[in-house]
Amino acid sequence: MKGYVFHGPGQSAWEDVPDPGVQEATDAIVRVDAVTICGTDLHILKGDVPEVRPGTVLGHEAVGEIVDVGADVRTVRPGDRVLVSCITACGRCRSCREGTYGQCRGGGGWILGHLIDGTQAEYVRVPYADLSVHPLSSTLDGKDAVLLADIFPTSYEVGVLNGHVRPGDTVAVVGAGPIGLAAVVTARLFAPERIVAVDLAAARLEAAKHLGADAVADAREAPEQLVADLTDGLGADVVVEAVGAPEAFELCTRMVRPGGHVANVGVHGRPATLHLEDLWIKNVTITTGLVDTYSTPTLLRMASAGRLPTGQLVTHTFPMTHMEEAYDVFARAADTGALKVVLGEEPHEEVVPYRAA
Amino acid sequence: MKGYVFHGPGQSAWEDVPDPGVQEATDAIVRVDAVTICGTDLHILKGDVPEVRPGTVLGHEAVGEIVDVGADVRTVRPGDRVLVSCITACGRCRSCREGTYGQCRGGGGWILGHLIDGTQAEYVRVPYADLSVHPLSSTLDGKDAVLLADIFPTSYEVGVLNGHVRPGDTVAVVGAGPIGLAAVVTARLFAPERIVAVDLAAARLEAAKHLGADAVADAREAPEQLVADLTDGLGADVVVEAVGAPEAFELCTRMVRPGGHVANVGVHGRPATLHLEDLWIKNVTITTGLVDTYSTPTLLRMASAGRLPTGQLVTHTFPMTHMEEAYDVFARAADTGALKVVLGEEPHEEVVPYRAA
Repeated sequence: MKGYVFHGPGQSAWEDVPDPGVQEATDAIVRVDAVTICGTDLHILKGDVPEVRPGTVLGHEAVGEIVDVGADVRTVRPGDRVLVSCITACGRCRSCREGTYGQCRGGGGWILGHLIDGTQAEYVRVPYADLSVHPLSSTLDGKDAVLLADIFPTSYEVGVLNGHVRPGDTVAVVGAGPIGLAAVVTARLFAPERIVAVDLAAARLEAAKHLGADAVADAREAPEQLVADLTDGLGADVVVEAVGAPEAFELCTRMVRPGGHVANVGVHGRPATLHLEDLWIKNVTITTGLVDTYSTPTLLRMASAGRLPTGQLVTHTFPMTHMEEAYDVFARAADTGALKVVLGEEPHEEVVPYRAA
Repeated sequence: MKGYVFHGPGQSAWEDVPDPGVQEATDAIVRVDAVTICGTDLHILKGDVPEVRPGTVLGHEAVGEIVDVGADVRTVRPGDRVLVSCITACGRCRSCREGTYGQCRGGGGWILGHLIDGTQAEYVRVPYADLSVHPLSSTLDGKDAVLLADIFPTSYEVGVLNGHVRPGDTVAVVGAGPIGLAAVVTARLFAPERIVAVDLAAARLEAAKHLGADAVADAREAPEQLVADLTDGLGADVVVEAVGAPEAFELCTRMVRPGGHVANVGVHGRPATLHLEDLWIKNVTITTGLVDTYSTPTLLRMASAGRLPTGQLVTHTFPMTHMEEAYDVFARAADTGALKVVLGEEPHEEVVPYRAA
């Protein structure tokens, strides 16, 4: 089969790789029908995630069909259409028992396209299939569903739920890329008073407005002042960091009100400065986290019912064979306007659902 | 009357000051029978808290008797014995309505010995008396009660409750001064599996053991390794920062397990480095806070019933007239072994309840 293989920083290719087969009794083999590319994949290509060994097939998000299962798999069988979650869960360790599957200590966690071969291929082996794939309703198309493999549960759990968004809140989302936009969409579920999106790119702020932001601010133009003006000088109840840069995190800690929450979703490569000399007295709560995907079944149900517009983040589709082109379009997002790119059986198409025709 | 007056960095004296009187209908005047000195008072004397104007009487903790009240005061009357809380609360603003009295936006918060004259005097004016003093049971002596004005609610709310200590937890307390020791005592209320206290001073680690720490570690000897060894490499469920220094805070973030809590109680004057490159994936929660004192009535009830050994933190007592000597003993804690010093009607005495006679 073909797969997208990491060969070390700056080197990768869509090329022949061995077909995966069942190795453990808890494995499932999935034929990949739709797959997407994550910002984390770009970090891997740059060499920022040294645990990824050269030779690894990338990707941790997919929709597909079960073609084979090990003897112990109980919840899915060949022929089932499933979502492959970015998080694999043994279901037995302390972390899994507490619902913190992302921290699985039994060999799961984020392993696909990280520690083992991933989903950017024609087939993928998914360990611990019972808890690591989710049966899909026939009403949900692959393009909508695949965004529930990682970014929607990530933004919802690590941003909105960790941040404790509540009705009447002022929510600031710093970074209006796919993760920030999914945070805007899922924060709306809690009826906040207003959502303020912050980014450097006008096109992303336009997308944020389309998806439910009430106000937007250029990150270079003192967004903390806008938030202060909107909140009687108090600050935002919840600030979601969806960038992964020290400057963005520090902006979040300046935007939050006393008693408020800063929910970090961004993947960071460098330390930030925590201004405890200001914050010690402010009753702030700062959370970090890898997604656990405990919310995935709920989000799937909502999306199947048409109540979560996940597919609106998809700006480009490609046939799977165009993997290298898709990476290029996604990596050059500032030029191409890409948010999420989805590869599957669909033709190459640029779709910008939030832009007026 | 006499009061302890701040005259600018390094300058202070026990001297004649005008008697306070009722200024607002919500005020009470309290005759001070017992008072203590807080680490924050030492910060003020060094000039670290520039909002404190020269001429201010210091102190934000006291036990005494109501001698006069304004026309609108309903919950106490002259003759009542009360605890004067470090937090004054208007009871009407958004913060007070949500129980975050420390962030009172109606003119309260931490104001005594900070923005207005405080408790280190023969009499003190307490604004918003209805919510800012607590009637005292006759079974609780002044020395035990005065520790409930600040340090016990602070350690309990900002350390133990914000840190979500739960049965079976491993709790690390970094800093075994009065605040850290009160965190040890109140963490015990939740039946943790173990409490590990960390400090530089052997005498304070001895006190921590006496008050309920199961293990102690010298801060210079890789305490994170001890915690890792005790927890199968996982780290502490809850880490309480009770120092107020960047190095201590950073140690806390190295000791916490994935999914754990770092509860900052320390008063910081400098920023810390937050290693988001390690922490982004670890599902940690970091909290900061000024005490709200919502727990004070509960803690008073427990102390009155003999279920909270607050007075065990008192190492020295003085008559009120020995204020300058008491400050000196408290400031030289490394030499004197002082934890909490209480001034009142008692004679000068050195009491080290946890040291074998």
